[in-house]
Amino acid sequence: MSDDIQDRGPDLDALRAANPEHWRRATAIRTLTLDAVAAANSGHSGMPMGMADVATVLYEKHLKFDASRPDWPDRDRFVLSAGHGSMLLYSLLHLTGYPEMTIDQIRNFRQLGSITAGHPEYGHAPGIEVTTGPLGQGIATSVGMAIAEEIQRDRFGRKIVDHYTWVIVGDGCLMEGVSQEAIALAGHLQLSHLIVLWDDNGITIDGKVSIADSTDQKQRFKSANWDVIEVDGHDPVAIDEALEQAKKGKKPTMVACKTHIALGSSAQDTSKGHGALTDPQLIADTKRAYGWEGAPFEIPADLKSEWEAIGARGAEERAAWEMRFAEIGQGKRGEFERTYRGDAARKLPATIKALKRQMAESQPKMATRKSSETVLEIINPIMSETIGGSADLTGSNNTLTQDLGIFTPENRGGRYVYYGIREHGMAAAMNGMALHGGARPYGGTFFCFTDYARPAMRLSALMGLPVTYVMTHDSIGLGEDGPTHQPVEHLAICRATPNTNVFRPCDTVETAEAWELALTSTRTPSVLSLTRQSLPTLRTEFTNKNLVAQGAYVLAEAEGKRMAILLATGSEVEIAMKARDILQAEGIGTRVVSMPCWELFERQDEKYRKKVLPAGPVRVAVEAGCRMGWDRWLTGERGKRDKGAFVGMDDFGASAPAEVLFEHFGITAEAVAQATRNLL
Amino acid sequence: MSDDIQDRGPDLDALRAANPEHWRRATAIRTLTLDAVAAANSGHSGMPMGMADVATVLYEKHLKFDASRPDWPDRDRFVLSAGHGSMLLYSLLHLTGYPEMTIDQIRNFRQLGSITAGHPEYGHAPGIEVTTGPLGQGIATSVGMAIAEEIQRDRFGRKIVDHYTWVIVGDGCLMEGVSQEAIALAGHLQLSHLIVLWDDNGITIDGKVSIADSTDQKQRFKSANWDVIEVDGHDPVAIDEALEQAKKGKKPTMVACKTHIALGSSAQDTSKGHGALTDPQLIADTKRAYGWEGAPFEIPADLKSEWEAIGARGAEERAAWEMRFAEIGQGKRGEFERTYRGDAARKLPATIKALKRQMAESQPKMATRKSSETVLEIINPIMSETIGGSADLTGSNNTLTQDLGIFTPENRGGRYVYYGIREHGMAAAMNGMALHGGARPYGGTFFCFTDYARPAMRLSALMGLPVTYVMTHDSIGLGEDGPTHQPVEHLAICRATPNTNVFRPCDTVETAEAWELALTSTRTPSVLSLTRQSLPTLRTEFTNKNLVAQGAYVLAEAEGKRMAILLATGSEVEIAMKARDILQAEGIGTRVVSMPCWELFERQDEKYRKKVLPAGPVRVAVEAGCRMGWDRWLTGERGKRDKGAFVGMDDFGASAPAEVLFEHFGITAEAVAQATRNLL
Repeated sequence: MSDDIQDRGPDLDALRAANPEHWRRATAIRTLTLDAVAAANSGHSGMPMGMADVATVLYEKHLKFDASRPDWPDRDRFVLSAGHGSMLLYSLLHLTGYPEMTIDQIRNFRQLGSITAGHPEYGHAPGIEVTTGPLGQGIATSVGMAIAEEIQRDRFGRKIVDHYTWVIVGDGCLMEGVSQEAIALAGHLQLSHLIVLWDDNGITIDGKVSIADSTDQKQRFKSANWDVIEVDGHDPVAIDEALEQAKKGKKPTMVACKTHIALGSSAQDTSKGHGALTDPQLIADTKRAYGWEGAPFEIPADLKSEWEAIGARGAEERAAWEMRFAEIGQGKRGEFERTYRGDAARKLPATIKALKRQMAESQPKMATRKSSETVLEIINPIMSETIGGSADLTGSNNTLTQDLGIFTPENRGGRYVYYGIREHGMAAAMNGMALHGGARPYGGTFFCFTDYARPAMRLSALMGLPVTYVMTHDSIGLGEDGPTHQPVEHLAICRATPNTNVFRPCDTVETAEAWELALTSTRTPSVLSLTRQSLPTLRTEFTNKNLVAQGAYVLAEAEGKRMAILLATGSEVEIAMKARDILQAEGIGTRVVSMPCWELFERQDEKYRKKVLPAGPVRVAVEAGCRMGWDRWLTGERGKRDKGAFVGMDDFGASAPAEVLFEHFGITAEAVAQATRNLL
Repeated sequence: MSDDIQDRGPDLDALRAANPEHWRRATAIRTLTLDAVAAANSGHSGMPMGMADVATVLYEKHLKFDASRPDWPDRDRFVLSAGHGSMLLYSLLHLTGYPEMTIDQIRNFRQLGSITAGHPEYGHAPGIEVTTGPLGQGIATSVGMAIAEEIQRDRFGRKIVDHYTWVIVGDGCLMEGVSQEAIALAGHLQLSHLIVLWDDNGITIDGKVSIADSTDQKQRFKSANWDVIEVDGHDPVAIDEALEQAKKGKKPTMVACKTHIALGSSAQDTSKGHGALTDPQLIADTKRAYGWEGAPFEIPADLKSEWEAIGARGAEERAAWEMRFAEIGQGKRGEFERTYRGDAARKLPATIKALKRQMAESQPKMATRKSSETVLEIINPIMSETIGGSADLTGSNNTLTQDLGIFTPENRGGRYVYYGIREHGMAAAMNGMALHGGARPYGGTFFCFTDYARPAMRLSALMGLPVTYVMTHDSIGLGEDGPTHQPVEHLAICRATPNTNVFRPCDTVETAEAWELALTSTRTPSVLSLTRQSLPTLRTEFTNKNLVAQGAYVLAEAEGKRMAILLATGSEVEIAMKARDILQAEGIGTRVVSMPCWELFERQDEKYRKKVLPAGPVRVAVEAGCRMGWDRWLTGERGKRDKGAFVGMDDFGASAPAEVLFEHFGITAEAVAQATRNLL
């Protein structure tokens, strides 16, 4: 956008005269935004003011939705990737008549307990399809929504599943690296039902976009196999045509919408306009320029009616859909409903139990990444909603099972995604699949590269999405690839994150139990931390009960007087068991506690926790990760203290064969035994 | 690359006949790679085999270096972004005669204690300019190297600083999102001394690139304002011409090198070829196809001499540079040498002390992000090596001071980088500046968005680079932006990372002390966790000594019998001080310990630690973050236990004004006092 155009800005009177009804509707969004930001004395005014025209046309003419039934599975999804412009979304939801989004909620923008948080929070209100705010997440998440839609369209037919995912992105979203992973993946997969509306306003917080970026975004999207359309973002007729054209493409489409941030205000086209416009005079002047009258938060009744008619526009189509849905046959309908509810397959518990029994008997020695594959081989055939994938480590993560098929433009029934070397994009896409509904995604990479996926993994937790992260190569046990690939702090990172279940199973039985919990989770993501190296089966006695569900349990009881408790996870449980052998031989009664999931153990009642970790015996924890967090378990319940020590890593790893490294870093049975003796 | 060409592959005999001397040199790299990978029984053979021709031409004809003086400041930098192909680099260093890179080191590839780790590790040997392996990091790091070169070329003149940064990237690097942040930044800044060599081999671990990517990389780079050249990566004459052309560009240049992974082996052009080729027959057949004879690891003496002549090629130019350097005048030379040594300015301690004294007297109430700016205002004028920046939050991070100037294509003397909304790219670029030498970078974003920068922050720590992360908005104290922007687990994440100093200062005096430590660090990155909200000055008594250097210290002593110790960091030190007032009024003698840096406290001797945290009194920690890690300090030294409690966050935050949130989450003086009473 040339400086010249920016300086002049559009002629509001001409815009109003050209499309008076549209202007009034869009201006309702603008004034609600100004009023809410002023009341909160914080927020972002400029983006909703700039994108109101595009959003109005989208909701009025294109978005398939029914405000009275935001849970209609075949609705279009709307993703506000530029989440700071949350008032755009809240205004739309209020105006079109989503019941929860009352004017009082708008008045309480950004206040405690309101559903109108500073950035859109999934779960606060229907119509908020995804939590956004961390830039780039929305567009990356939308790719997963579009994948889920394609897979379900293939499975259930076009009469049941046939909707679009619309995304509004800003320059910030497009500068974040994750946007590249997202658009490259979407372009490659030819997700033609994904339409991105770029708010091309040329402004960021630090000033003009041009101070930090010279990217030709249109060329960039084309290079990623997208269709690109340009449009004046304040011309409703042109916008309508562009959106119509976008829906017809064979590829995903990016619509570059030239807009003026903070349209019509004295802060138009400036970084000031990006933020909170709270000056009463500025607000009054701007409303006057809009030709808008009336008190703050006041929407004329006739205008509200017009908007509510837009909100009801899809009711007929929705009713027709319900008729069609009723006719698809009980089996398919049941499967559709079960997967949208997020229930696991009814066969799951018995299937897992059978595997556990088999493994307790055959006692294989295998890496837990291989154990995970063994579980997936029996899960995927009975859980039609799983969508697997890996960030280019399929053979290492053991995530692809025989029956899945690969998801490609030619095979929309495939349930395995080759994500490419895009851990972050994968994690965000998985969030999108879970948000879309009817899908239960899992995806793999090396545990160390959770670093790349962190922002999206945090959103899995914050949104409460039951995504499963299959994170293999979980310690120095991966060997020669060296410290860049060896997790040290990553268990602590995942455990520190609220609402995240971190599973580090010690053998195939625990892996099966962990998978059962991941697949039955409804509001918590799961991280499976799995070994590259082989491990023995330690759960050699079949239990009907899922012991991992308790988080920690007694794997081996002390013989004689209980003098020590060894706590361990994953590959170090074997070490703890060997240390127990050493100590018992010396007459030191030693219990081994396997702790595959701290979070679930914390949720047990105090009685159980005390039973597993009674006061008295010394405690030694062993884990091939950092100490961070372990002191919690080396002390007793609040106020009661027990002697404790930790055997693990206190620095980065090194490049050498795994067994050499365990020796080198002193993570051995003898070291655990010695640490125990030192405490006694 | 069409399947047809891949299937056929190049005619090795023809290649050899066309350029016999080149072929022999390049083949030495290929055979060393085959031998080392076979000996290690792991590693990546295919990439060095495919890129040997390009690398040979680069080292033979273009790279400015002197193997006998790898520390020559004006050398070209070579970055192997595709770090899994480490044997390419190790072979080059061995062949050209870097003294440390002996044939025994090559024989010990990937073994404990060798300098030839699985992936190149900075610090293991001269010539390894950067740790790579996590994909995309090398290319993103190189952007910072090129920025540092531009700034220093401007400051010291073209006779002293005038070198290129060469980067080999693979498809994996280009799929990682961070590569987009890097190329967009480099293109915008017109870093013409940055040249990227893309190993366009069409293969990743999961198979052909085409199963996961359809990006037109050439068009993508052009859209980011780069020059693009295409070349046959096995034609040394064409490669030479391409590299010559690349050096002449006014923009950064990407050279797309069409290559065959695992050239000449039966695994050529397959994903098998990407990994470890260890089959003796395959190796024998491949060597025969190369026309190579001799035992493993054996390089004919004449060939080694040829390569060593290449290694000595730059000696004359280096000597000439030293002459020029001796002539630039003592002041400039001293500044150059000081900044390359990484020493802080001599004036720094006195400058910091003066500020501390002033602040202890004036006792301002200000946010620590503002305190940080106050410190930077006095640091930047005396430390010519600082390079500041922010990921589009300049006014929020308070990172831009008056005298810095903005780094742009027109102003190469500018010391402030508008990174755009690219936290990851910023962190990696800062690593590159520190690696380049003569630069001490700092950069800002919101603390929560360390998530985006994680992979590069981990590399700062692993490489031991004294980069400073200015992370503002460090808790729920940021208020209305809500949980997506509010750090909860981020202190734990940074603290869990080895070799990272995490500073959470409580006022301007502590902020000044933290900055002094960050600026004098030589091998450890620093994270400054700073508030958005105002805080009182608590260090009202001037101390000559830097108390933050001890990690934790007694800020306020108990009056009467010491019954309780309150531990706190940052904004919660004020809360602890208020809680102390409450408790003292009730006759409960209460000490307050400020703990701005756990890592430094851990490094104190046991005597000091016990002095600060004596056994006996109950302990209550308060921090507006998660509990993870605090139990370490709520217990005494190993084996001794004290009663403890924690007041902080156990879930994500919320959107509301800051003071409302502290009340809502119960992080208040009264809550701390009550937790203390509960323990007594």
